Amino acid sequence: MRRGNCPRTPGFVSAQQVADLAGVSRSAVSRTFTPGASVALETREKVLEAATTLGYQVNDLARGLLANRSRLVGLVVTKPEVGFRAHLVASLSRALIRRGNIPFLIDTGSSEQEMQAAQAALFGYRAEATIILSGSPPASFAELARRNGQPLVMIGRAEADRDHVRTDNRRAAARAAAIFVRSGMNRLAVAGSASGTPSIVEREDAFVEAAERLGAAVRIARGSDTDYAGGQEAAAVLLGLRPRPEAIFCVNDLMALGLMDAARSRFGCRIPQDLSVIGFDDIPEASWDAYRLTTFRQDPEEIAARAIGQLERRLSDPEAAPSTVQLESVFIARDSAHLGRPDDAE
Amino acid sequence: MRRGNCPRTPGFVSAQQVADLAGVSRSAVSRTFTPGASVALETREKVLEAATTLGYQVNDLARGLLANRSRLVGLVVTKPEVGFRAHLVASLSRALIRRGNIPFLIDTGSSEQEMQAAQAALFGYRAEATIILSGSPPASFAELARRNGQPLVMIGRAEADRDHVRTDNRRAAARAAAIFVRSGMNRLAVAGSASGTPSIVEREDAFVEAAERLGAAVRIARGSDTDYAGGQEAAAVLLGLRPRPEAIFCVNDLMALGLMDAARSRFGCRIPQDLSVIGFDDIPEASWDAYRLTTFRQDPEEIAARAIGQLERRLSDPEAAPSTVQLESVFIARDSAHLGRPDDAE
Repeated sequence: MRRGNCPRTPGFVSAQQVADLAGVSRSAVSRTFTPGASVALETREKVLEAATTLGYQVNDLARGLLANRSRLVGLVVTKPEVGFRAHLVASLSRALIRRGNIPFLIDTGSSEQEMQAAQAALFGYRAEATIILSGSPPASFAELARRNGQPLVMIGRAEADRDHVRTDNRRAAARAAAIFVRSGMNRLAVAGSASGTPSIVEREDAFVEAAERLGAAVRIARGSDTDYAGGQEAAAVLLGLRPRPEAIFCVNDLMALGLMDAARSRFGCRIPQDLSVIGFDDIPEASWDAYRLTTFRQDPEEIAARAIGQLERRLSDPEAAPSTVQLESVFIARDSAHLGRPDDAE
Repeated sequence: MRRGNCPRTPGFVSAQQVADLAGVSRSAVSRTFTPGASVALETREKVLEAATTLGYQVNDLARGLLANRSRLVGLVVTKPEVGFRAHLVASLSRALIRRGNIPFLIDTGSSEQEMQAAQAALFGYRAEATIILSGSPPASFAELARRNGQPLVMIGRAEADRDHVRTDNRRAAARAAAIFVRSGMNRLAVAGSASGTPSIVEREDAFVEAAERLGAAVRIARGSDTDYAGGQEAAAVLLGLRPRPEAIFCVNDLMALGLMDAARSRFGCRIPQDLSVIGFDDIPEASWDAYRLTTFRQDPEEIAARAIGQLERRLSDPEAAPSTVQLESVFIARDSAHLGRPDDAE
């Protein structure tokens, strides 16, 4: 090992070290790792063997500098460790790694200083693209991406002038209202949140519109966030009403779980005998024995695959018109909602 | 905007564009963004204003190439979206961003091809360090890091020759056994897993040793993974025994939740009247009304802060002896375990 002779790069194995071990020139090492470059088969084999022995990796910083572009892709997301988002982030990360990218997770719940550091790194390293998940990210990310000509893909949002991937929230929420009414329930409620997240607002609005169109009464309560505690807050409001709602649509599963627990432990409700509950997402917890939540499934792998598709399309044609991919959710009938007609269970 | 005149860098705003808008030289732009370099105050202000207007960011690829080191830090983790790990990964990501790093999440559950791509990117971009979380990562990461002189920090593992941060699993598990025995229970069991994760194995072993030392009978069942389904598998084995165990220590909270649900819905057990359960981690779900799980809390923010401390220490002194930081967990008494003596509740 010649590491001691190479004081300017004390850490990473260098191309010169590979050349020395292989007994070839530095330029032969470069050519071996440059796609399409000419190098004798025997030389190539010596170089590859030496590279493996030493643990050498081509310097992507140098390649990125030539292209003025790295393989970083920013994933901007609010509370990436919570609920459905954790699964979507995991699926997106794997899909990005599969195409040779480096996913860079940026949590918008970070401090102002952290956000600035993240933004500086994302653009400073000439990231290939940014993917923004539902939530309320600082507008500065979208604006910086636009100015620097960087592709931007939105997930679960509503901007018409951007490439995005979304779930048909309106259709699912309207279907929840129809299922409740057809099952003979007319005192309905929706547990929404004050988060202002576009997809969450859509679900709440569409449920209320559909329920009113069907002649049902609808009450609304919003948790301070779209999580377990938010579901408990909504339960405290809605289950204190007289007469009580017979059925509650929750804008996501985490809220539904909090609402179910509060309904049982604080209001003595049996589910679904006294109260029917439908959620949205189908996170793993929804299928737990304590909940057996009826819900609408979003598939994080499918959303991730479509987001990558949008990204590929934009990279291959920067001038293409903005495009929307809309996915349907799948109704999952479990035990938390009284289903009056068997055809709803599909 | 002169973007059209600059065909070789169609995307990112260049230093030349900033110089043109500010009416200064390209070199004045460089000096403005080089710490310690001399530049007239008036020039500096013109440059900063133009940079803000255009959305310019210094090219970190170029800086990284000079230093042969980027700000990337690899986070190697198994199933990063599940349970306590999701929270630890989120805390680590925020802590890394705070110190100007780019966290690069590598999921060891990925395919062989994905792992190779991730590894090539991590070393190809000359990542500053790698952090390996509990689980069973491919040895190749540690080996490549070693060969390339890259700092490596382990979390929740047992290697004596590496910098690592760990929780005192043995002490907590022994305490769980003591609490059960002091509360008058002598038919004990542990729900472990076949995952082989070092911290999980430690908890199982220490519980069994302590219980036997205290004269209690201990049965062992292992789920195929350390998750909700694994807890249900362990419940199916342990609650089928006659006589049934009176108390079960679960090696993490997710397993405890699966075990509790199975105990209630499939075996008609009341908790804690018929069965006491203690978990480990204190994930948010442990405090949900349906569970109210008694457990040992690990603080992901504290673990992340200590891991960054280990990293800083190693970067400032590459020759320092390997060091271990061991953290204590905190006993959280809720309602899932019968506590015979009030001092256990602390």
